[in-house]
Amino acid sequence: MATEVTAADTSPWVVASSRRRIDDSWFRVRQDDLVLPSGHEINGYFVWESPDIATVVPVTPGGRFVLCRQYRHAVGRVMLQFPAGGIGDGESAEDAARRELEEETGYTAGSLEPLGRTAAYPTKLSGWHHLFLARDVVAGGCKADDPHEPTQVLTVTAAEIHQLLDSGQVQVGDSVSAALLALRRLGG
Amino acid sequence: MATEVTAADTSPWVVASSRRRIDDSWFRVRQDDLVLPSGHEINGYFVWESPDIATVVPVTPGGRFVLCRQYRHAVGRVMLQFPAGGIGDGESAEDAARRELEEETGYTAGSLEPLGRTAAYPTKLSGWHHLFLARDVVAGGCKADDPHEPTQVLTVTAAEIHQLLDSGQVQVGDSVSAALLALRRLGG
Repeated sequence: MATEVTAADTSPWVVASSRRRIDDSWFRVRQDDLVLPSGHEINGYFVWESPDIATVVPVTPGGRFVLCRQYRHAVGRVMLQFPAGGIGDGESAEDAARRELEEETGYTAGSLEPLGRTAAYPTKLSGWHHLFLARDVVAGGCKADDPHEPTQVLTVTAAEIHQLLDSGQVQVGDSVSAALLALRRLGG
Repeated sequence: MATEVTAADTSPWVVASSRRRIDDSWFRVRQDDLVLPSGHEINGYFVWESPDIATVVPVTPGGRFVLCRQYRHAVGRVMLQFPAGGIGDGESAEDAARRELEEETGYTAGSLEPLGRTAAYPTKLSGWHHLFLARDVVAGGCKADDPHEPTQVLTVTAAEIHQLLDSGQVQVGDSVSAALLALRRLGG
């Protein structure tokens, strides 16, 4: 059983006041003045009200994994990752996963099963990543070719995805979590 | 071998101009005007110049995993995670991992081995998470008791960490990646 080593009061912090710092549809930032359960105060704590994201690990009937290679501007690198994107207003995480898979890769999902959700940076970002495994994905859907997100699509075998993960060639956080959870689910 | 399905130009984007939007030591944000290899332009692209983080999966000689439970304000939840924190100026990722482990839990690391690095949100955040496995950690170090980060410390068995991961009870992204990579390394 889990053993408690040290205790602490992890009650929610109280927001004494809050103000908008950036109000852009891509980047809404607020600053909160906070009171902790101990009575300590933190003034001007920044929160990016980040979007919820759907991330999907697509596997073909032949057991190949479908990946994307894209330039990621904030880190300034070309990165290998699984299809992922923002969940629209009123859209379910499942529908977003199916949509992003088709838009980014041209593959469409057979069955879709949830792998859980993660918070990429829960001290500063409010959004969640909803992770899915898509089995029996097939080519032939409608790739969107977004001019603002040039995307190379590639497929790899199960042995290759293990090798890519263990050698650190997949570095996008939610893709690493989703891939490793998917491989556990697939028993591989 | 990896099979290319569709090609695209993933050359770096050119920064035509850039301006500071928030210049706080905890939250430095800039906006870039960008030119893509296709010639398309994106104006006012937001980047949070986020800190590099060290995340460490601590395992005792008896095979127990050391976890923290903390309130995370941006998502408004108490979350279970491995010790993690910002890498200081001039500090190595390894030194930060050792320091954060001791400050947050009171445990000190025996050996430390890198598990790779991940980018939590590489389109919008510039920082990296450096992931480590710390074997043979022992209690008796100096827990910092930061009043701004009340932390419960607990230890769980290997069977319990598997169960916590598979049931979605660890939800902090870098902790999920680090734990799953550590379990592969440990052969469990």
